[in-house]
Amino acid sequence: MKTLNIAMIGYRFMGKAHSFAFGNTPFFFDRDINPVKKVICGRNEPMVRDAAGQFGWEAYETDWRKVVNRPDIDIVDIATPPVNHCEIALAAIANGKHVFCEKPLAMNADEARRMLDAAERAGIVHMLGHNYRRVPAIAHAHDLIAQGAIGEVRQFRATYLQDWLVDPDHPMDWHLDAAVAGSGPHSDLNAHVIDLARWLVGEITAVVGLKETFISQRPMEQLDAQPIMMDVTVDDASLFLARFAGGAIGSFEATRMAGGRKNALRFEINGSRGSIAFDLERMNELLFWSLDEPLALQGFRTILVTEKVHPYLANWWPAGLTLGYENAIVNEFADYFQCISQGKPCTPNFHDGWRISRVLDAVSRSWDSGHWESCDD
Amino acid sequence: MKTLNIAMIGYRFMGKAHSFAFGNTPFFFDRDINPVKKVICGRNEPMVRDAAGQFGWEAYETDWRKVVNRPDIDIVDIATPPVNHCEIALAAIANGKHVFCEKPLAMNADEARRMLDAAERAGIVHMLGHNYRRVPAIAHAHDLIAQGAIGEVRQFRATYLQDWLVDPDHPMDWHLDAAVAGSGPHSDLNAHVIDLARWLVGEITAVVGLKETFISQRPMEQLDAQPIMMDVTVDDASLFLARFAGGAIGSFEATRMAGGRKNALRFEINGSRGSIAFDLERMNELLFWSLDEPLALQGFRTILVTEKVHPYLANWWPAGLTLGYENAIVNEFADYFQCISQGKPCTPNFHDGWRISRVLDAVSRSWDSGHWESCDD
Amino acid sequence: MKTLNIAMIGYRFMGKAHSFAFGNTPFFFDRDINPVKKVICGRNEPMVRDAAGQFGWEAYETDWRKVVNRPDIDIVDIATPPVNHCEIALAAIANGKHVFCEKPLAMNADEARRMLDAAERAGIVHMLGHNYRRVPAIAHAHDLIAQGAIGEVRQFRATYLQDWLVDPDHPMDWHLDAAVAGSGPHSDLNAHVIDLARWLVGEITAVVGLKETFISQRPMEQLDAQPIMMDVTVDDASLFLARFAGGAIGSFEATRMAGGRKNALRFEINGSRGSIAFDLERMNELLFWSLDEPLALQGFRTILVTEKVHPYLANWWPAGLTLGYENAIVNEFADYFQCISQGKPCTPNFHDGWRISRVLDAVSRSWDSGHWESCDD
Amino acid sequence: MKTLNIAMIGYRFMGKAHSFAFGNTPFFFDRDINPVKKVICGRNEPMVRDAAGQFGWEAYETDWRKVVNRPDIDIVDIATPPVNHCEIALAAIANGKHVFCEKPLAMNADEARRMLDAAERAGIVHMLGHNYRRVPAIAHAHDLIAQGAIGEVRQFRATYLQDWLVDPDHPMDWHLDAAVAGSGPHSDLNAHVIDLARWLVGEITAVVGLKETFISQRPMEQLDAQPIMMDVTVDDASLFLARFAGGAIGSFEATRMAGGRKNALRFEINGSRGSIAFDLERMNELLFWSLDEPLALQGFRTILVTEKVHPYLANWWPAGLTLGYENAIVNEFADYFQCISQGKPCTPNFHDGWRISRVLDAVSRSWDSGHWESCDD
Repeated sequence: MKTLNIAMIGYRFMGKAHSFAFGNTPFFFDRDINPVKKVICGRNEPMVRDAAGQFGWEAYETDWRKVVNRPDIDIVDIATPPVNHCEIALAAIANGKHVFCEKPLAMNADEARRMLDAAERAGIVHMLGHNYRRVPAIAHAHDLIAQGAIGEVRQFRATYLQDWLVDPDHPMDWHLDAAVAGSGPHSDLNAHVIDLARWLVGEITAVVGLKETFISQRPMEQLDAQPIMMDVTVDDASLFLARFAGGAIGSFEATRMAGGRKNALRFEINGSRGSIAFDLERMNELLFWSLDEPLALQGFRTILVTEKVHPYLANWWPAGLTLGYENAIVNEFADYFQCISQGKPCTPNFHDGWRISRVLDAVSRSWDSGHWESCDD
Repeated sequence: MKTLNIAMIGYRFMGKAHSFAFGNTPFFFDRDINPVKKVICGRNEPMVRDAAGQFGWEAYETDWRKVVNRPDIDIVDIATPPVNHCEIALAAIANGKHVFCEKPLAMNADEARRMLDAAERAGIVHMLGHNYRRVPAIAHAHDLIAQGAIGEVRQFRATYLQDWLVDPDHPMDWHLDAAVAGSGPHSDLNAHVIDLARWLVGEITAVVGLKETFISQRPMEQLDAQPIMMDVTVDDASLFLARFAGGAIGSFEATRMAGGRKNALRFEINGSRGSIAFDLERMNELLFWSLDEPLALQGFRTILVTEKVHPYLANWWPAGLTLGYENAIVNEFADYFQCISQGKPCTPNFHDGWRISRVLDAVSRSWDSGHWESCDD
Repeated sequence: MKTLNIAMIGYRFMGKAHSFAFGNTPFFFDRDINPVKKVICGRNEPMVRDAAGQFGWEAYETDWRKVVNRPDIDIVDIATPPVNHCEIALAAIANGKHVFCEKPLAMNADEARRMLDAAERAGIVHMLGHNYRRVPAIAHAHDLIAQGAIGEVRQFRATYLQDWLVDPDHPMDWHLDAAVAGSGPHSDLNAHVIDLARWLVGEITAVVGLKETFISQRPMEQLDAQPIMMDVTVDDASLFLARFAGGAIGSFEATRMAGGRKNALRFEINGSRGSIAFDLERMNELLFWSLDEPLALQGFRTILVTEKVHPYLANWWPAGLTLGYENAIVNEFADYFQCISQGKPCTPNFHDGWRISRVLDAVSRSWDSGHWESCDD
Repeated sequence: MKTLNIAMIGYRFMGKAHSFAFGNTPFFFDRDINPVKKVICGRNEPMVRDAAGQFGWEAYETDWRKVVNRPDIDIVDIATPPVNHCEIALAAIANGKHVFCEKPLAMNADEARRMLDAAERAGIVHMLGHNYRRVPAIAHAHDLIAQGAIGEVRQFRATYLQDWLVDPDHPMDWHLDAAVAGSGPHSDLNAHVIDLARWLVGEITAVVGLKETFISQRPMEQLDAQPIMMDVTVDDASLFLARFAGGAIGSFEATRMAGGRKNALRFEINGSRGSIAFDLERMNELLFWSLDEPLALQGFRTILVTEKVHPYLANWWPAGLTLGYENAIVNEFADYFQCISQGKPCTPNFHDGWRISRVLDAVSRSWDSGHWESCDD
């Protein structure tokens, strides 16, 4: 039995999701690895106390600095807004902790690079929270592409559509403040899609994009009758075109303004022998089309990715029973704990985060320059 | 903090699913109710020992009789094959335990009635494992119908399609042995659908059905090269027509021979003002059509049932994040524990199980008689 | 160039659809067969005159008896309500005309048998208007089954769902009058489905069913403020279970009360090696699942049936361009004219109509008897 | 009865589709307008002769110059490759003919402008073959947007996916020769999408794009064993980002390399109050989502656009019966003939074609410049 003591910085949505995973990896995966929810950390004392109780943490703390150097902690899990990632990660690494960091890794590629360099120098096991790699249907897509099922990849098209900002009365929050979040769906959602694009297709070399903010002010959430309007300083939507190192081309869109789409991370990949398509709102399904069929029988097939032969599924339920959002996060931490336990690197990691940040930064530069930007600059 | 000590009889699929739920209701629901996995019971000692370890039980046992009368146990959870339900439940009830029983409740309506009578006399809180009532989309359907959104219900049509027996090499197992399982998809799957039909539409008064076994012998799973063929003594498919007390009509089909359908519990309900449709393979979606719209805009809408305003969702994830199979079981036990904690009856319960058994028995009688059978005989 | 002079009895929906087909078979199919729209016949003189003008008929007539014995007529096309089919067909056959008859063939199996016997004695080419056999996707399904793509058929399930009677204000019309229509969706819609079931699976041997009329009176369509209520004398919904000669089982449902479903003729066929599914509202798509695939890749594929290799498609548009309702009727008459031109029998024909009527009659008998009825009685 | 004598230049795919429409507009629409298929023209004499016979033309011709000045001709319909559009149109206009021209209007905006100027000076009725505006579901989308059903438009995203070039053995043809076709999917498919975008959203002001040719040589179709390889001189895929005059943003993609997608013109439009989505492969369906619904009931509804209240449908079939590809072309010419008959301008016309060409040209310029290009330059 190997015990892994965890400190988590952050306690809201990702705090809940990670806490759930920590409590359940031994149940579904290796029961000889025992993650212990030692301490959860947040600035709002009543709220973090409540979270600690609800999510089963041994203790809570309001100052992350007190947490990252606790000698009994093995892993620091950073689930704060992006602005804090770099500082916390560097401190944790300096204390020799393994670090799991939520996406986007950093506010920009420079920060990401510093985090990567520190992590590699320290020899810790670092991982980046692109949980969608562990959605079984996406992992299955990866396997199929790796096996050559669609031939040479030519086109990648993806949209990540949400709609929580369509309502103009949706209040201001930190996600809409560039100083805290870095950017809007550009980094929040496109980071996920770029991660998948790199994993499934390869490196992105050049990009050109546009962004737009449709609602420039939003009310502060408060008790008063008279709302105070705050400036939205991030994008509501961010689109870009891309070229990949291997010759493929791609399109990316992330938006919080697509009414009716809740979490529609959709991608389609066309290769020389086949195609693959996916929609996160139907996360148990993978569409696959192959040129290597009789013409009269060709068609996209909807694979219900719930068989024991599909990635991760042997650890879950009998065939036909579908998984939900949090299961991918259990898969993610099961893999991470395994890597730590075996002293092996894990992916996606800070190197991936740095590469993703370079793409994001290149898109941002293109907003100002109006032309294609290299991701290697 | 209220502690509920649980003994579970059975350790395989339902054993795993229930164990998961016991470990997670405090996380997602009321943290002041603490279900404790005291003892898990099964006849195969190495396997139940392993299950106890993997699923986090304090102890294991191989004789259910030693379990149902342990004084420290509050709840006996019966997750065995149907043939054992009645005897175990009666013993547990006799010891004053609350009893949760997997579906189908019993081998027939007589057994079910005895279980119901015993449970009511003892005043224990009994519940029946028709977990699909706690799928949020189905609960939402129930709310909509109750609110009159589709008017007066006229037609109910449902199919529960699986395909694990299409392959003739699929080995014999207890599900295919009438002495242990009672029947095939007839009681295994149609029980679920009848439960939903009664909940959503009302009592079923008369039925006529047919059944078929397409593959009458299957190999025993064994190591020898020469397989021993065993007789399949249950149905592979069971269909029936029904009349409801309120005037509605219905059709039901359960099969394990529908190639490509894995867990396709599908129903559609047509009323005088609207319609509702559902497919368990897309369990986060509910289709709804209303006559009370301008004709040019009428169409089935696909509601992604993941909003805080939808049943159970406030306890889970932000809008757009979908749930999986096991989440409904967490919902189910959260409700059960709440009922026990408050001393209130819970549904579906043994009374529902008895009514469902009467419908199943009436269908079985119609197999022999060839004509409509009343469910009240 | 072979000329075929046509007389059509009926001028409304089917009158329009057939007129369209007559005008377009040379364009899409054999231009050496020239169908001539000689005379269209209906009892309402202003309306039939208008139809003749709009649909391009050389003449119109109000008495069908004057039409069926015109010496210049080669084909009599019967598109009247069912009550008139038998009398008109017998008269046309007596005059040596080829007869095309809309479905259902007759009011009952006795009438159908007389029509069949007369047609066979006269040696004319008879055809029955089950146009859906000529929907390319359904014809493709037939080819696949014939080639063994799904193995031995075990289960057939079909629903034909419409909703034009959900609105209680929908006025009375002849479709709701048993004396004219015979029955409701029972014969209007189930006739189509039985035709497909026989074609795709085989003969039906025994059935048991139920019917229901949810709204028993409807207003007569008139100008007065005070509507006169008329009795609905046909079923609103008709469901039955069936056994096929080859051992397969089936379920059938036809309804005009399924709110939101407009013309949803849906069927699924499960065999020992695969499955096929179809929905007429998406008539260019055929779903196909095969057991003969690696498990990790199995899934229903959506075949867009628009390739040159698909049935009838070589005569239409380039791949990817979808067909509509009327195209199947062009296919149907192109085949019929070809059969006449070559002096060959055509299917489906009056023999099929008779067999279908026997199934419909057996279902009707089961309404009264409450038990299974043989289709061979 | 008004007679319109038509000369058509071109006889293959569009030749067939237009010929069909000419033969059927009186049947479905105004029977007092009689389009006469006078003469069809093509360079290959055996083929055009055969087309004339199959499609019902009175005569054929091999030199378009002999056709455009025939005094009996009212309308010249140009269905040739793009390289010939301008010259033929100018000649036809010079002879006072009404001109219908297939898309794309011209090889570039300069040609388009000359065609527009000539047409306007001559006062003829000109129309451009963007038939998809007359797909009822798209026309319905237009009506809904015009009525404010989705509020202010913010985002437009469209893909037009085909796959006929995935197979490397697909032979060279004129579509792949820049000298004849102008470009590949860039002008062939994106022209359609730009037309819809302008109609549904408004003018496009600036663009940046990329193109790619994945297979640079293809075999000439010939009888020899040894194929001659020819250079592909057009794009296989063309993508661009766009800004609209009204503040909306958009993404466009056209490709012939999306394996499994046959004619997938898909678009989604997100506004401040609702969203609309469409897929040409399911051309009878329109998806609509509205913010003005109770949250618990929100969802994209699938409107089956076949009701009498939907655009064009009153002229077709009863509700529930779906239309196919060619029906939109019948709608298109019915409108065109009506405009000619009434002496009114028709849309889309050469002005639209010129605006579309300016967008296409701006995208082309961005390929070289690597930056955003104004569509007004």
